Amino acid sequence: MSSADDHRFMARALQLAARGLYTTHPNPRVGCVLVREGQIIGEAWHQRAGQPHAEPLALQQAGSQAQGATAYVTLEPCSHFGRTPPCADALIAAGVARVVVAMQDPNPLVAGQGLQRLQQAGVEIVSGLMEAQARLINPGFITRMQSGLPYVRMKLAMSLDGRTAMQSGESQWITGPEARADVQCLRARSSAIISGIESVLLDDPQLTVRDPSLLGEAGILRQPLRVVLDSQLRIPLSAKLLAAEGPVIIVTTETADTRKVNALQDLGVEILPLPLRDGQLDLEALLRHLAQVHQCNEVLVETGARLAGSFVAQQWVNEIVIYMAPTLLGSDARPLIDLPLTQMSQQRRLHMTDLRQFGKDIRMTLQPVTES
Amino acid sequence: MSSADDHRFMARALQLAARGLYTTHPNPRVGCVLVREGQIIGEAWHQRAGQPHAEPLALQQAGSQAQGATAYVTLEPCSHFGRTPPCADALIAAGVARVVVAMQDPNPLVAGQGLQRLQQAGVEIVSGLMEAQARLINPGFITRMQSGLPYVRMKLAMSLDGRTAMQSGESQWITGPEARADVQCLRARSSAIISGIESVLLDDPQLTVRDPSLLGEAGILRQPLRVVLDSQLRIPLSAKLLAAEGPVIIVTTETADTRKVNALQDLGVEILPLPLRDGQLDLEALLRHLAQVHQCNEVLVETGARLAGSFVAQQWVNEIVIYMAPTLLGSDARPLIDLPLTQMSQQRRLHMTDLRQFGKDIRMTLQPVTES
Repeated sequence: MSSADDHRFMARALQLAARGLYTTHPNPRVGCVLVREGQIIGEAWHQRAGQPHAEPLALQQAGSQAQGATAYVTLEPCSHFGRTPPCADALIAAGVARVVVAMQDPNPLVAGQGLQRLQQAGVEIVSGLMEAQARLINPGFITRMQSGLPYVRMKLAMSLDGRTAMQSGESQWITGPEARADVQCLRARSSAIISGIESVLLDDPQLTVRDPSLLGEAGILRQPLRVVLDSQLRIPLSAKLLAAEGPVIIVTTETADTRKVNALQDLGVEILPLPLRDGQLDLEALLRHLAQVHQCNEVLVETGARLAGSFVAQQWVNEIVIYMAPTLLGSDARPLIDLPLTQMSQQRRLHMTDLRQFGKDIRMTLQPVTES
Repeated sequence: MSSADDHRFMARALQLAARGLYTTHPNPRVGCVLVREGQIIGEAWHQRAGQPHAEPLALQQAGSQAQGATAYVTLEPCSHFGRTPPCADALIAAGVARVVVAMQDPNPLVAGQGLQRLQQAGVEIVSGLMEAQARLINPGFITRMQSGLPYVRMKLAMSLDGRTAMQSGESQWITGPEARADVQCLRARSSAIISGIESVLLDDPQLTVRDPSLLGEAGILRQPLRVVLDSQLRIPLSAKLLAAEGPVIIVTTETADTRKVNALQDLGVEILPLPLRDGQLDLEALLRHLAQVHQCNEVLVETGARLAGSFVAQQWVNEIVIYMAPTLLGSDARPLIDLPLTQMSQQRRLHMTDLRQFGKDIRMTLQPVTES
């Protein structure tokens, strides 16, 4: 088998993996292709937690043909019993002769164990093929496995001159329908959406995924966990997001009003009391809670300028997605992010990883540059 | 001759015209291709005012072969005696059988006269082929012929959050070398560069074209006219831009200090006294002066936020070119344009005509949307 063939089949496996973008939470997105004599004899992707992994699904399609075949998998096959039996064992049992993986398990405690198990059974192993592409599919799962934190993506919408609303607070959709549709995709791929009480009081948003085309091929419209930072527990019980489908966490302080806490809990809301740090809710404690208790991989921050400023200043943001509309709101309008810097040396440099047009607007994807 | 051939040869003529981008001021950029039996027998572009137009240069190459040929010209051939004899007459005298032009002369007083002269001599005429592309090569010449005003292009450089310097005034190159090299191209194609006294006092710029690769194929590094708005005549006689090569206009009021006026005139500077309008130098009077006295086609505005705000607020800007660096300067930093708007309905909508990457930065080209 040529190296070009290996690339072609792994590219197909990555394509399959991406079909799980909106549905696999809290699991990673994984694709698998089984090939014998240059022909695909089975292919599958993991669709949903609790349902089969990609490898057994592909093996099922291949049946007895799997004997002597090559398996292309976007993530190292698991070697442990979870809700499903170990995939490494299934590949061995089916007689697969060669396994090509794009990347090892990102969890340092188990990385390499699946490959070792395969190798010990006499299976030929290739690891790291198209690894960069594979990592892009699971930024959240990888970050959580490696650091115990979710991958934090911040979404912002602004004018050409970096403004979000007039000084008076007057605001309206700045970006067009194409950009807003793309925000639905960002929400749908996220395990959780974080917002601030200011935004909730101002706009009364639902913060849900409403686009039915985001059902995914698995046919499940999973609603991400919605998280509201509300230190004084000001959220009205009539807030739309409390009534909308899907789980809600209200983050507040340990001294929050017990009656309001109870009323919210009666509505099915989780109340998360957190310590204050410099007068603000402890963002690190929140992110660790989301990763460790709720297994959040990707988290979307959709807040106003103030809370956005805290996330950026404390360097909790892994990626910023900015939708920019070609309009000038003027120099008195409200800033994008409340970030009071005084010297050029404090500037926050970013690296642009993607730039594209959505209708009349553009979308920029950026990552912080870690100063060396 | 097929329509595809016509397009191909006109595309070549447009390519040739563009070679005059930096050198033809105050004339338009024009290219000409002569074709006989599907073969190019002569091609040329106008290089510099006072030197031959594109048509006679191409005819010279073709010699007696021009008899019965087709001429592709990006602009209607002239019919009047200027510094050179009429091109329409030259085409007729050479026996050219067919003339294809991309656009008519933009001057409404003479538009169509060259074509009429050709037609009366029995030459077959096609007009308007690839007109949109032809118009893009000469935005300034067309605007000046039609309105008596130059085409005003405003250059801005900013951070991702729409800022240009820290509140203290601390500033440094925000954009990278690739973006700054592109600014040299914008300067080189301009008839004039407009700046404000604030920028001159702050940065002491030369505002010249320094990139030797912009000599153009004509081998002439033309320095654009440099214009400084300085109502109180604060410019120091030691300012670098006064010593640098190329003409300078200082725009001031009619009550400016006579001694300073004389001292500047002794340095070869043109002093342009203008009336104040709402306490500011009259920008319309300035632009009309540049178009009508100095035959300025494209004018580049390179100013600070205040003067930029006046140009935008008064709607004198035909095009905004923004270089954006992927960095955050924070919400206390200085705004891009001083433009105090209070209501969303006052926002200035723009249309993005071009978007590209220069090194780590992006460049956006925008035009105001005229509300209908």
